[in-house]
Amino acid sequence: MGGDPSLLRKINQAAVLRALRAAGRGCSLTDLAATTGLSRPTVEGVLEGLARTGLVAEAEGAAAEGARRGRPARRYRFRAEAGRLLGVEVGSRRVTAVLADLAGRRQGEATRAVETEAPAAERLERLAHTARTLLGDLGVTVSALRAVGVGTPGIIGQDGSVALCAALPGWTGLPLGERLRELFRVPVLVENDANAAVLGERWVGAAAGADDVVMVLAGLSPGAGSLIGGRLHRGHGGAAGEIGALHLLGRQATPERLLSTAGTPVDPLDERAVTRVLAAARAGDPRAEDAVARFVERLTHDVAALVLALDPELVVVGGWAAGLERVVEPLHRELERYCLRAPRVVASALGGGAVATGAVRLALDHLEAELFTVTETG
Amino acid sequence: MGGDPSLLRKINQAAVLRALRAAGRGCSLTDLAATTGLSRPTVEGVLEGLARTGLVAEAEGAAAEGARRGRPARRYRFRAEAGRLLGVEVGSRRVTAVLADLAGRRQGEATRAVETEAPAAERLERLAHTARTLLGDLGVTVSALRAVGVGTPGIIGQDGSVALCAALPGWTGLPLGERLRELFRVPVLVENDANAAVLGERWVGAAAGADDVVMVLAGLSPGAGSLIGGRLHRGHGGAAGEIGALHLLGRQATPERLLSTAGTPVDPLDERAVTRVLAAARAGDPRAEDAVARFVERLTHDVAALVLALDPELVVVGGWAAGLERVVEPLHRELERYCLRAPRVVASALGGGAVATGAVRLALDHLEAELFTVTETG
Repeated sequence: MGGDPSLLRKINQAAVLRALRAAGRGCSLTDLAATTGLSRPTVEGVLEGLARTGLVAEAEGAAAEGARRGRPARRYRFRAEAGRLLGVEVGSRRVTAVLADLAGRRQGEATRAVETEAPAAERLERLAHTARTLLGDLGVTVSALRAVGVGTPGIIGQDGSVALCAALPGWTGLPLGERLRELFRVPVLVENDANAAVLGERWVGAAAGADDVVMVLAGLSPGAGSLIGGRLHRGHGGAAGEIGALHLLGRQATPERLLSTAGTPVDPLDERAVTRVLAAARAGDPRAEDAVARFVERLTHDVAALVLALDPELVVVGGWAAGLERVVEPLHRELERYCLRAPRVVASALGGGAVATGAVRLALDHLEAELFTVTETG
Repeated sequence: MGGDPSLLRKINQAAVLRALRAAGRGCSLTDLAATTGLSRPTVEGVLEGLARTGLVAEAEGAAAEGARRGRPARRYRFRAEAGRLLGVEVGSRRVTAVLADLAGRRQGEATRAVETEAPAAERLERLAHTARTLLGDLGVTVSALRAVGVGTPGIIGQDGSVALCAALPGWTGLPLGERLRELFRVPVLVENDANAAVLGERWVGAAAGADDVVMVLAGLSPGAGSLIGGRLHRGHGGAAGEIGALHLLGRQATPERLLSTAGTPVDPLDERAVTRVLAAARAGDPRAEDAVARFVERLTHDVAALVLALDPELVVVGGWAAGLERVVEPLHRELERYCLRAPRVVASALGGGAVATGAVRLALDHLEAELFTVTETG
């Protein structure tokens, strides 16, 4: 690396940016030189370059407490407002977009309904419209975006295309990452929805601080996202956690039937229908109580399979079942009975926002890798 | 590290040993200096030290092809016979010991039956006797042992004690590693039996070259060992793959009942009883055929749970079910139907020897870490 001045510049830039981000409120030249181990002239040169890109500015209220005499020392800060990150969930019944600044701080959110049977083009158009409306409402132009994270059902290939998805029409084979790159003109990171959700819960939700986590997204076809040693476990072909098919083997009832109260199937993704059943169960309707009990039993079986296979420290229950007040406690009790080592069980802290929040985290991870890490090949 | 001559010596030793092991048949001083980048006097000093420990000797048939004139160059080799490794399986119905040299080459094996209900002390005594007999028959003293690997059912703690084991009486809470260290006076590595088995299959069996593997040990309570990215996945508390409890949740029949042909339960660990049922099924006895079909269905469900959770590239079926000629093909067919991405399914190549072979691999891994790697703290 001795012979490559541009690599050296990148390394210095990354060091200064990291120090500014860690400091939060602003750093003097002296602080930055001390933290990074670089000379003051080098730090000054790096700051000038970063100021030109817009990523660094002088901190306001620059009268630093440390400067006791003469002119107060200039202080610098990371400009989290220099760009934006978009986190997107493309689901069966709705699309959601969350806008955040370059520090990952949430600035706004929009959700629109979409028909379960909507073809892929219509679903993508709904997403584009939702994102554009959100940006417009917040006075942000598309050119401000630095990265887009996406969570969607199915098995996602390494190139961001949907390798397989039974839930959304026309989704299998769709080059989703490519389409969204054409739309937003920035890097797009696509991930399975349950995988995105567990990243979101670990970032700012119920799995903060946990390294071995299984998150179950209860729904029409339950899926799970797993962290092993703090890292997403995608599996050999990206299909890890796709436990929706498990009940087919046991010839058990489908969730529609599990939730039905009078022979009429209830779509577990239809929140109003599910809410009706839950309300009836709470009111003491014995058929609704039975339906909820059957659903919990099925969910317990799916979660137990994951827990026995992976042995996590924590299970997070998400999707609409997170709102099922009676699911966490019985689930834990059942796992205690059947698992050799039962993990903690908690409800999602992010609820319906877990997938989109995880999608923001994907975009932020990409940005941080780009800004704060330098490799020999970078 | 500049100031620690003993660390430098270890690094040089490790480099020379690694080069000798890789070369296999013998290396000249010139070869070793070239491979390791060390000076000839340094290599000579290291070789003298290693010869004193017995780990290196002059290769026989020292007339090297490379030496065209004068006295042939001396050649050196790693002395795999300088010590022994022991791999042990302590199971429900038998104990097995395998002896290997320091290159992991198998030199002999002994197996003894033990009662399923035998208390822990009797099981340990049977193991000690089996190992001593094997060593005696091969003319090897206990002092030649360098490490012992052990595979046994249950959840194994990091200190080599049995945290939980439902299958063997008195096994839960047993400080198994400590007991065997007292017996053999060398490092003892204890691992769950299915975990040991998947290491064995990857080393010299059906999983060679595969990095994402699930190995199922079919038996009274099926267990699984998993490799993720080539490394054992033990889980947060060492309980990963303990899927034996899964069927309890689905209220399915126990394996004894699954295999019964006339209302009499058949113990799946009783090889003779199982063999009778399999033979009857092959002969066309419809009740036996039904029993085998029920067992395969149950096994499919357990394996599917693991496959859906982990998404491996390969499933290895071991335990006695590996001999079940009709298990691999239907299992793969069922997985194709229900899993989004079905892995390859193969029968164990090591059969009943998988666990003990994996235990040898554990001992070899320990030896190699000791001999061939040097860390700053080492």
